Amino acid sequence: MEFNLIEIIGLAAATLTTSSFLPQVIKIFKTRSTESISLTMYLIFATGVLLWFVYGLYIQSLSIILANAFTFILQVIIIFLKLKNTYQNKK
Amino acid sequence: MEFNLIEIIGLAAATLTTSSFLPQVIKIFKTRSTESISLTMYLIFATGVLLWFVYGLYIQSLSIILANAFTFILQVIIIFLKLKNTYQNKK
Repeated sequence: MEFNLIEIIGLAAATLTTSSFLPQVIKIFKTRSTESISLTMYLIFATGVLLWFVYGLYIQSLSIILANAFTFILQVIIIFLKLKNTYQNKK
Repeated sequence: MEFNLIEIIGLAAATLTTSSFLPQVIKIFKTRSTESISLTMYLIFATGVLLWFVYGLYIQSLSIILANAFTFILQVIIIFLKLKNTYQNKK
């Protein structure tokens, strides 16, 4: 029972932090602007997310594993769009 | 011993995901631009970070507690700067 409450809090946290990157992805697609987005932030964040994923596997936390798997995918999309914009603007 | 390795991975992950927001904060201070930053993303993310903090307390993970405490502070700074810019541009 206690396990369930903890995992519900964890999954709620996971859903929020992961889904939070969706509005950013949508905003980039809509505005095609990534100017004020920090590439360094996303590169460091994505590396950290990968380590959280490993940590989740170690401590066998479903919330941490799922959150970081999905978050990593969204990070890669944002990094790709930022790099694409930066490259196109330089041409 | 195994506990140490896990917590080292966790603390490395924590350091990366938390410190990743520093370049974004610095970028905003330098450029004073928050235009392509999604307020919705940061509001949802900050709420999730608070829940992760609670989750960390429950499962007694030092990495999760520290990471989310510091991340939350940086989130609040970014949200404040975004709101400040949005308000000033509207004037």
